[in-house]
Amino acid sequence: MPHRRSAFFVSDRTGITAEAMGSTLLTQFDMQEFKRETIPYIDTVEKAAEVAQKICTRAASDHHRPLLFTSIINPEVRAHLKLDCALSIDFFESFIGQIENELGQKAAQTIGKAHGLINEERYDHRIEAVNFSLNHDDGIKLKDLEEADVILVGVSRSGKTPTCLYLALQYGIKAANYPLTPEDLGCPTLPKSLLPYRNKIFGLTIDPLRLHNIRSERRRDSTYASMENCRSEVNEAESMFRQHAIPFISTTHKSIEEISTTILHKAGLSRRF
Amino acid sequence: MPHRRSAFFVSDRTGITAEAMGSTLLTQFDMQEFKRETIPYIDTVEKAAEVAQKICTRAASDHHRPLLFTSIINPEVRAHLKLDCALSIDFFESFIGQIENELGQKAAQTIGKAHGLINEERYDHRIEAVNFSLNHDDGIKLKDLEEADVILVGVSRSGKTPTCLYLALQYGIKAANYPLTPEDLGCPTLPKSLLPYRNKIFGLTIDPLRLHNIRSERRRDSTYASMENCRSEVNEAESMFRQHAIPFISTTHKSIEEISTTILHKAGLSRRF
Repeated sequence: MPHRRSAFFVSDRTGITAEAMGSTLLTQFDMQEFKRETIPYIDTVEKAAEVAQKICTRAASDHHRPLLFTSIINPEVRAHLKLDCALSIDFFESFIGQIENELGQKAAQTIGKAHGLINEERYDHRIEAVNFSLNHDDGIKLKDLEEADVILVGVSRSGKTPTCLYLALQYGIKAANYPLTPEDLGCPTLPKSLLPYRNKIFGLTIDPLRLHNIRSERRRDSTYASMENCRSEVNEAESMFRQHAIPFISTTHKSIEEISTTILHKAGLSRRF
Repeated sequence: MPHRRSAFFVSDRTGITAEAMGSTLLTQFDMQEFKRETIPYIDTVEKAAEVAQKICTRAASDHHRPLLFTSIINPEVRAHLKLDCALSIDFFESFIGQIENELGQKAAQTIGKAHGLINEERYDHRIEAVNFSLNHDDGIKLKDLEEADVILVGVSRSGKTPTCLYLALQYGIKAANYPLTPEDLGCPTLPKSLLPYRNKIFGLTIDPLRLHNIRSERRRDSTYASMENCRSEVNEAESMFRQHAIPFISTTHKSIEEISTTILHKAGLSRRF
């Protein structure tokens, strides 16, 4: 009999924290086994009661207690999700008391603003960072680079664009990127347009075989995608980084989150909103 | 004397979960009060000992115990962050035992893959979604819309682009967007290129005053940014949504996370990776 459990992530807001928390715990077990469902915006007793019913129905059909991860501030709403039919991991209940004691202050019990619009200025800053990254993608605009917080440099398809967008969206970082062309790679100096900003440059590299596979998806059997060309471009890019003491990381076995947080950490940048 | 505490988010990986968890709890108190610092990639006893020292030094200079939120799997590494000088909220220790008991299975104790590269196929899917969103931003490409999971429709500057990028990056959703032009708004029918996809359309609206402010940042004193024009465009867009029974939400007081998760929820979409 297959062992398939359900996992629910229930929140009074977006569900992002409940999902992050629950998923992190579930990575320690075999995640494929879980039927996962996120239920956001459960902010009334009525909605909570409906969810409770859904979960208990699922428990019966699964023949297993679901795992229930909740992030709900209002104690009354939360009370409706204390279920015998599920294992409840109640995030607020577990920790808020300890923090209240430590701070000598009661929790506000107003609905979480962790992913809410805190103020317009911060929101605008974030959107500005996204627009900056879009406007400075792929070296299309080399003006205004003095505004950039960081400039990612690497060969085509090494992961620059998604990383820049992630840095902008998640951290409000103005991240430009510059693709190293074959001409740049043949040169003993850094690309001229980057020279004034060399302390903001961060390099991305990638395993040549992985690059070959990615490029082949786009242009199969081209010189661009050939294993030989990929190997030589990557070698030359890495030599450039080493020669000019530019910090760089490999994106090969990393997620966008890992690439981004590593860059933030190594470049000493922090959240801008 | 001002009451300024430090809050540390310490993780063996990206720190994203520790930060999300800690921040959500801190929203219940006055967040401005905290000096926040995320310390990722603490995956050895040596690094943990270094962080411990840093936190205790801070405790002394703050004259307050810092709050310490940890998400670290290895129990030995974790042990070095059980500090008297801080209030430790240890995420794994608090919950992993309950889940082990429920599942009758020991936690793998391998470092978290919540934000790690799980497999190349999933990674590729995510990048494909980002590229799709970039290529279908602002109605620049109306071909291939049958591939879209959702098509966001709204007037210029209503929040379409950042939402599409967020949906692609965070959920692997192929999100296209189409800006409603003054010509579209004067028409009694839906824009022709959208007609075949009307079941995938989701509308964004925005408060006219907020729109006026956003547009004025870009083109002050233009007709485009004028209060009168903003009001009329928003009215016409909302009439269009109502008339054609297109679901829509207001982005005015919402963060990108809230807009995105609301759309996912209402459109019945879920994570694609």
